[in-house]
Amino acid sequence: MNAASTDSSTRGPLDHTIRDQIVEAAEQHFKLYGYEKTTVSDLAKAIGFSKAYIYKFFDSKQAIGEVICFNCLHGIEVEVESAMAEAKTASERFRRMFRSLVAGSAKLFSDERKLYDIAASSARERWRTAADYEMWVKKVITDVIREGRDSGEFERKTPLDETSQAIYLVLMPYIHPLLLQHNLHLLDEAPGHLSSLILRSLSP
Amino acid sequence: MNAASTDSSTRGPLDHTIRDQIVEAAEQHFKLYGYEKTTVSDLAKAIGFSKAYIYKFFDSKQAIGEVICFNCLHGIEVEVESAMAEAKTASERFRRMFRSLVAGSAKLFSDERKLYDIAASSARERWRTAADYEMWVKKVITDVIREGRDSGEFERKTPLDETSQAIYLVLMPYIHPLLLQHNLHLLDEAPGHLSSLILRSLSP
Repeated sequence: MNAASTDSSTRGPLDHTIRDQIVEAAEQHFKLYGYEKTTVSDLAKAIGFSKAYIYKFFDSKQAIGEVICFNCLHGIEVEVESAMAEAKTASERFRRMFRSLVAGSAKLFSDERKLYDIAASSARERWRTAADYEMWVKKVITDVIREGRDSGEFERKTPLDETSQAIYLVLMPYIHPLLLQHNLHLLDEAPGHLSSLILRSLSP
Repeated sequence: MNAASTDSSTRGPLDHTIRDQIVEAAEQHFKLYGYEKTTVSDLAKAIGFSKAYIYKFFDSKQAIGEVICFNCLHGIEVEVESAMAEAKTASERFRRMFRSLVAGSAKLFSDERKLYDIAASSARERWRTAADYEMWVKKVITDVIREGRDSGEFERKTPLDETSQAIYLVLMPYIHPLLLQHNLHLLDEAPGHLSSLILRSLSP
């Protein structure tokens, strides 16, 4: 969960070691004190760099937050893809996707609440990382549906984009950081029940 | 949206005229100043009764809030039932239910934001009104499914309670006051797309 970068909103020399050091130190600081309440000055003081030096590498506090958020969400993506990899059918792949997406988001929420809050800021303020993650989820959904249609497992009458979008809407309350916090009491039952409903809707 | 009462958490003489006057005045006050920030003392001052006199009729501020919340939600129930009444099939009844439930909640949110906030308190603090409304929504869903099963319009293999619960979960983000506020940008597309997905899942 460290090295990746969105490569956006950064400036100055491409010294990845120092960039990574700043991100790493900022992540530790945010984990303790939260993202919203920390200023770049606080951060500079805490990690022992000057504010000007940090600005050599990052446009803004958000640019640092985006890298941290990207790393967290990328971690979930890797887990979801690995959970799906061994499934033998599109239906099973779909169930695993839903279950592991929810598990990943819930884990971030419970284990790393302060990092989760960065993901919530990302969603609230429509950062590029949030938009990219949403696009990735939609792509995974579409790929599974396409696979099930090709194998004859799923119906083919409904336009693919309509099906994908509707399924995304069903999943959203359990993966979107601003919604998930209201739905934590449903995490045991919802992925199973909703996967079954969606799979019934996909049957030929 | 006036006369109804939950008949709970009230005390003192059953003088409905005065009870109704207090509720009516409290509703006007909450509409202007909000429920959360108002104390029973503020309310007493504003409506010209003594605090002790208000406590003759209501246990607490929440007891007044419950009546106001009940009236708002009951208004939505009446509209939903009237929208469903003319539908010729269970599918059409389902679509109308979803659409009018969402429209009613959204209207409360946009036209009477301060009253909507009472519904949000009700959901957050698990008042009886919120629980009753949830039960009513689940009952309406179950009734429509049962009707569609009886007429042969819907499949009958899945246990009825599992189907109802899953459908309730799909609707929830658009009717639950704490979730709806995050989903307002989806209100044009979501009820149609999700109704279609649900109806596909119900097909025999």
